[in-house]
Amino acid sequence: MSRVWNFSAGPATLPEEVLKQAAEEMLDWRGKGLSVMEMSHRSPEYTEIFEHAKRGLVDLLSIPETHDVLFMQGGAVGMNAIVPMNLLRGFDAAAFVNTGSWSKKTAKEFAKYGRADVVLSNDADLGQFKAGSYVPDCGALVDSLKSKKYAYLHFCDNETIGGVEFNGQIEQIASQLAFPVVSDMSSNILSRPIDWNCHGLVYGGAQKNIGPAGVTLVVIEKRLLGRSIDHCPSAFEFATVAENGSMYNTPPTYAIYIAGLVFDWLKRKGGVAWAQAEAQRKSALLYKTIDDSQFYTSPVRPEDRSKMNVPFVLADESLNARFLSDAANRGLVQLKGHKSVGGMRASIYNAMPYEGVLALTEFMREFEKEVA
Amino acid sequence: MSRVWNFSAGPATLPEEVLKQAAEEMLDWRGKGLSVMEMSHRSPEYTEIFEHAKRGLVDLLSIPETHDVLFMQGGAVGMNAIVPMNLLRGFDAAAFVNTGSWSKKTAKEFAKYGRADVVLSNDADLGQFKAGSYVPDCGALVDSLKSKKYAYLHFCDNETIGGVEFNGQIEQIASQLAFPVVSDMSSNILSRPIDWNCHGLVYGGAQKNIGPAGVTLVVIEKRLLGRSIDHCPSAFEFATVAENGSMYNTPPTYAIYIAGLVFDWLKRKGGVAWAQAEAQRKSALLYKTIDDSQFYTSPVRPEDRSKMNVPFVLADESLNARFLSDAANRGLVQLKGHKSVGGMRASIYNAMPYEGVLALTEFMREFEKEVA
Repeated sequence: MSRVWNFSAGPATLPEEVLKQAAEEMLDWRGKGLSVMEMSHRSPEYTEIFEHAKRGLVDLLSIPETHDVLFMQGGAVGMNAIVPMNLLRGFDAAAFVNTGSWSKKTAKEFAKYGRADVVLSNDADLGQFKAGSYVPDCGALVDSLKSKKYAYLHFCDNETIGGVEFNGQIEQIASQLAFPVVSDMSSNILSRPIDWNCHGLVYGGAQKNIGPAGVTLVVIEKRLLGRSIDHCPSAFEFATVAENGSMYNTPPTYAIYIAGLVFDWLKRKGGVAWAQAEAQRKSALLYKTIDDSQFYTSPVRPEDRSKMNVPFVLADESLNARFLSDAANRGLVQLKGHKSVGGMRASIYNAMPYEGVLALTEFMREFEKEVA
Repeated sequence: MSRVWNFSAGPATLPEEVLKQAAEEMLDWRGKGLSVMEMSHRSPEYTEIFEHAKRGLVDLLSIPETHDVLFMQGGAVGMNAIVPMNLLRGFDAAAFVNTGSWSKKTAKEFAKYGRADVVLSNDADLGQFKAGSYVPDCGALVDSLKSKKYAYLHFCDNETIGGVEFNGQIEQIASQLAFPVVSDMSSNILSRPIDWNCHGLVYGGAQKNIGPAGVTLVVIEKRLLGRSIDHCPSAFEFATVAENGSMYNTPPTYAIYIAGLVFDWLKRKGGVAWAQAEAQRKSALLYKTIDDSQFYTSPVRPEDRSKMNVPFVLADESLNARFLSDAANRGLVQLKGHKSVGGMRASIYNAMPYEGVLALTEFMREFEKEVA
């Protein structure tokens, strides 16, 4: 079979040229006679691969000297515990913005370590928009947080499940807060530039917009290192990981190598500026197809719609199974919505070409005609 | 260049046929039109891959129904914290056998969570054998531990750095202890059968005897689930991971797939019985070469020598660099000893063929003649 258009929310589609290079180099990396998978993480060959990947990320996101880049394990779910264990020394609480499943999960896990104050939430309906389907108004946050002593403010920049994405609202207020902002960007990192003045800590599981599952990216402001609580495991302590160049324990070497190849690919394409324009172009096409139809609906408030994860529902839910099966027959796979929301979801990360989104929208229009 | 003989201690050499299959399937797994790396961990295709890998390990090690198999992240260094966080509820201490760098590190990390009692150690010289180069006598352990209330007894079955390996001494006393035995088998798992009556918990980073770095195998007696302390992160809580079939968070999907291919390969070869015989044959050849020579010395007491990691020293240390360089010219790489012990170390895990060890010993004899 030829390659499918894979709309999985993660692990997700990867650039074909990255996979081709990985396949070609599998048994023999650059004439060294061994696979990257077989290299000691302390060998000169792997050091080169690792530093190249790290530099790739630094270049793509223009990460300044004020911040450290760490390659860790455990994904965003692991980070829900790792972050408080690393930042809570001297504090008993942190502030959370709730915009959906992921930010909820983060606040819930935090409660193992301190008081999780949900300071803003989209948990109630807002006019025609249901709970969870919009970004709450951040305007009053600065005033309401003025007198508070929090370790940090946490938000999830893009809710993979609900398809709700911020559009800079937190960045706009970050400089007025007395504490750092922690951002879960698992599903939209590298899809837009990041203003590092506004982010004390950005993290993300790689398996959506970067590479294979098993590596977690952490970009942390250096002044935040060394705030860990006593119970923080050394392997997950940011300061320890930073001091050891992400080699305190054996890192997920092969996943980092693949991430490095993805960074190279993205640079060739035109970097984050290209990714941002493409995300705009692809998501606009898909949302237009949805909005123009009488059959598909997006549950999310237009200005808060994710450019990465596009949930939509069919007017007749009994046609869901047929939609998925007809789509699969056209090589359009992994379109089923998350079990918690139902319907459909198309994840269109950096590695999904415009062509794939075009194929999806053509199918959607044809399917609508067929069942009308 | 053709493939080298790679004696790295980990990440380590993998079976060539596994790498070939991985390369062939990289862009299109079994006609599904996508890479394993791109599969949703909840897709039917990946579920099949995951269950196959899990069954492979269960079959190879004859893991009984009393034990659960978990695929986790963080490696053995991560486990040094994850294990106490999972087993310390209701206890304030655990017992540790110290046989070298790894077991020392484990006890040290444990001190973040409770009292680490080192109940047996090879920290002192024993006649001609230096500290760290033998397995201490376990005979008196049962009596000395009789009245103690420990969460568990921890030992490292094979010290990767020191090259010291147990030979069943702990298993022989396990049934007489009032608490479970926890075994770090990172560097010798799958090299011999395991008597599950003697092991409450066995763990190991995969990157030595199994597959790529980034996945940690945990085999735990089910009755030990649910003993976690409050601070234990959900992503690393054995009970949570077990309840969710290792899918509470996204597992390192590709690393597990490769591990599954290695399990298939090992089954075709003849399973753990074959691996054990091969380890015996390969290590015997290498130790005999060392012992027969006037130039190489093994620092480890003969009956405690590892069948996986073989450290040795040259009579003239000023020849170390030349040894390594001449070896590399013959395609024998990663022979430099760990920085903490110096000299040489040849790691000869399951995937290192007898032929590779033969090539090494031939080179060693020639080198000795040359410099004599």
